[in-house]
Amino acid sequence: MPERQFRLGALAEALGAVLEGDPARIVTGIAPLDAAGADDVSFLTDARYREQAHTSRAAAVVLAADAETLPTAMLRVKDPGQAMIRLLGLFHPRPAPAPGIHPAAVVASDARVDTTASIGALAVVERGAVIGAAVRVHALAYVGAGVEIGDGSEIYPHAVLEDGVRLGRRVVVHAGAVIGGDGFGYVFADGAHRKIPQVGTVIVEDDVEIGSNATIDRAMLGATVVGRGTKIDNLVQVGHNVTIGEHSILVSQVGISGSSHLGRGVVLAGQVGIADHVTIGDGAVVAAQSGIHADVEPGAKLLGTPARPIMQAKRVYLTIDKLPDLARKLRDLERRLDRLDSGGTSDRDG
Amino acid sequence: MPERQFRLGALAEALGAVLEGDPARIVTGIAPLDAAGADDVSFLTDARYREQAHTSRAAAVVLAADAETLPTAMLRVKDPGQAMIRLLGLFHPRPAPAPGIHPAAVVASDARVDTTASIGALAVVERGAVIGAAVRVHALAYVGAGVEIGDGSEIYPHAVLEDGVRLGRRVVVHAGAVIGGDGFGYVFADGAHRKIPQVGTVIVEDDVEIGSNATIDRAMLGATVVGRGTKIDNLVQVGHNVTIGEHSILVSQVGISGSSHLGRGVVLAGQVGIADHVTIGDGAVVAAQSGIHADVEPGAKLLGTPARPIMQAKRVYLTIDKLPDLARKLRDLERRLDRLDSGGTSDRDG
Amino acid sequence: MPERQFRLGALAEALGAVLEGDPARIVTGIAPLDAAGADDVSFLTDARYREQAHTSRAAAVVLAADAETLPTAMLRVKDPGQAMIRLLGLFHPRPAPAPGIHPAAVVASDARVDTTASIGALAVVERGAVIGAAVRVHALAYVGAGVEIGDGSEIYPHAVLEDGVRLGRRVVVHAGAVIGGDGFGYVFADGAHRKIPQVGTVIVEDDVEIGSNATIDRAMLGATVVGRGTKIDNLVQVGHNVTIGEHSILVSQVGISGSSHLGRGVVLAGQVGIADHVTIGDGAVVAAQSGIHADVEPGAKLLGTPARPIMQAKRVYLTIDKLPDLARKLRDLERRLDRLDSGGTSDRDG
Repeated sequence: MPERQFRLGALAEALGAVLEGDPARIVTGIAPLDAAGADDVSFLTDARYREQAHTSRAAAVVLAADAETLPTAMLRVKDPGQAMIRLLGLFHPRPAPAPGIHPAAVVASDARVDTTASIGALAVVERGAVIGAAVRVHALAYVGAGVEIGDGSEIYPHAVLEDGVRLGRRVVVHAGAVIGGDGFGYVFADGAHRKIPQVGTVIVEDDVEIGSNATIDRAMLGATVVGRGTKIDNLVQVGHNVTIGEHSILVSQVGISGSSHLGRGVVLAGQVGIADHVTIGDGAVVAAQSGIHADVEPGAKLLGTPARPIMQAKRVYLTIDKLPDLARKLRDLERRLDRLDSGGTSDRDG
Repeated sequence: MPERQFRLGALAEALGAVLEGDPARIVTGIAPLDAAGADDVSFLTDARYREQAHTSRAAAVVLAADAETLPTAMLRVKDPGQAMIRLLGLFHPRPAPAPGIHPAAVVASDARVDTTASIGALAVVERGAVIGAAVRVHALAYVGAGVEIGDGSEIYPHAVLEDGVRLGRRVVVHAGAVIGGDGFGYVFADGAHRKIPQVGTVIVEDDVEIGSNATIDRAMLGATVVGRGTKIDNLVQVGHNVTIGEHSILVSQVGISGSSHLGRGVVLAGQVGIADHVTIGDGAVVAAQSGIHADVEPGAKLLGTPARPIMQAKRVYLTIDKLPDLARKLRDLERRLDRLDSGGTSDRDG
Repeated sequence: MPERQFRLGALAEALGAVLEGDPARIVTGIAPLDAAGADDVSFLTDARYREQAHTSRAAAVVLAADAETLPTAMLRVKDPGQAMIRLLGLFHPRPAPAPGIHPAAVVASDARVDTTASIGALAVVERGAVIGAAVRVHALAYVGAGVEIGDGSEIYPHAVLEDGVRLGRRVVVHAGAVIGGDGFGYVFADGAHRKIPQVGTVIVEDDVEIGSNATIDRAMLGATVVGRGTKIDNLVQVGHNVTIGEHSILVSQVGISGSSHLGRGVVLAGQVGIADHVTIGDGAVVAAQSGIHADVEPGAKLLGTPARPIMQAKRVYLTIDKLPDLARKLRDLERRLDRLDSGGTSDRDG
């Protein structure tokens, strides 16, 4: 990853920032506050790191317009998070691959590959696939028959798009992810599980990102749908006929069983499990490792298995810690009452 | 996926159904009750959907011989589930690939590939592998040295069958699944974990299906065995020396630690974890996310971590919800008793 | 897997063992105590299997110097575990591949591949990669631009090492594992999740083993680090900027969220989840399926979600089982007190 250098004045211009410091000062890298050297620019995007900002060796810090004054040069912006994204792109630009099909790729003669797309070595593109402008299909990726990939999408090595899957624009599919595998559906008859043919597809809308080795199954009939802007982390499982609304977040190792429906802006933390045929309302947030077995209201915040409202769950957890103590107290009370009944006092020393 | 059209009379014949309706009526697709259009055939396989069946726009519905009368044409069958499977196959037949080895596949000269098998582009078949009749090895799949694949099996893109693994007939291995990776075994000695060579293999019996990105480790010695007809979902982990009986079901993200043994017809719901050296009896059912640390009786139905009989677990969960309330009541009782002891009454307002 | 044969005398010499038995006796295989035949050597590495050792049909058993006498020939050693590892290697030697680059591999002209390394069929090695002595890159593996692989490492089929990742010596990366995928980081702005470029890398130190389909994300800035000798099982997720100390063990399906730090010799059992920005002290042990949301002291042994010290957690679990009973007793006590207040006795039959 090549690094570049910039004058603070040029950075201020690029970020639309107000610079408090020397515009001629040169910075050669970007680093977090605690790791930054004397020639690095850094960023304060979270108030938790204020102290680090005061002791950082960075040459300059990007921070909010209304943030406190730091001993370093300051680049004040409206949104430090977005400015940090822009900065990372400036210092670490991604080299765009040369367009064209690698001679060692295997592309079906009737596949339509845009001339600006790049198909890597030993990638396979099957018959009837349609690959849009500026798409990058990395080496060893698999694009099945009839798959459609929208403009600007990127398919990493060993990702698998099975027959008929449709991706929107600017979709990123990371290495080893499998989109369009058969859903897990059987009928038990005559002593064996009979496979229900999974003849539907998967539709992935614009700006979705799908993590390494994640799996998204095709629908039995119709389509499994991942809504626009939704981000899916590594090793997540999405079952057949699931629909996920826009701008949702599925953290690593989440599992969603068949035919469940997630709204917009849903957040499922790591290792959450969702049962089948469940509806999760818009904006619901489910804490890590929780298990959801029933519909969830929009905006609900849940924790635990079975999941409870997060405040209730925390109260329950606190009480659980005191359970052995509670049981002991209960035995004490019984004994005191027994003694009362035998004519004495219930007093502990009684 | 091509769609076809059929007269209801022809469908009745194909399904062995009794038709109540016009045999000349043409249907052009198959769809669920709620999504079916006026030219679709649909199916009622679960009483939960009776209401949808009455309001469906479908031209005809496949249903049980003794089911109620619907406003649509009806195709009455003994087993609607199996009829649905047959219907899906009629409307969405899977194109069989041309037999033969793709010129861009790499097949060892001493591998034995049946002339009716199909080996896709950039698939690798190592020395000594034996590939049976009508097997389909998709593009970019890996078949290790000495692997045996029984007749009619299908290996999806990027699936990996490591050296010496043996698959029965009609086995399906989905994309990215890894069969025969090393088991996770070490001896801690002289300050480091020393790898125990994993020199056993994996035996997958007939009619097993293995999901995308699932992993099934080879035995240290002997074999990890997946029994006939067992279905394994995506991202499931099966440790070394595990044996799984026939017709079991392992839902997505289940993990089974080394040397555990599952009986016939076991069902493990999503994200269940099984400790090592545990035996799960025939027909046991374990609810989602549960953790099993001890042997399970045949037919047991378990829930939770640690797992309890499902009815007990549900009772416990209900009481847990009332825990903060319980703790409060206990404090009240203590106070009442204290007051009694001081000579007053225990009355709350006392 | 070829098997060989050895005289017991030769085995004793190879293992540095004291033989009690006939040195001319020939053994043709190695097997566990319960599966060994009359011509096999076996091993007693765990006192739990003492009974099996007495009834085993094995010709000879490897056991500790001070272990009891068995009816079979005995090979007494200081460390039976290490002797077993040695024995497995003797009976099942791994054939070393011929060095060189397979003609169907695609290797960038400026990649530096040691002449003793082996690059398999249809493997891809991108520009600037450096591959050390005796490294084995299996068929269909992917080695990204600028990747460095230390001497003696092995990369299985379909493993993916993304651009710039660095592996030490004797590192094993199993099939389908993805090292260096983007970390999961976004800033929510203007109604959408904006991707934070992940421009850091992954450093994997010497003697690390990484399981099939595991995923280890690159850092946003800096490096995700897996310490020397650490062993990672299948389907484990390691988030961006995580650091893992030396000789730790991560069992299958563990998930570690971004920026968490594990010490030396940490053991995380199967399906454990670690929240982000958490520090786990040296030698801490976390039981299966537990969830860690706060820092963990060195040497702590934790269980449950939220995790508690293992003894406390077990006490809590025991009490939880009695919860419905507890609730009933509490109601009884209330009733007895009520009766007392009404002037009677609290006696149950009162």
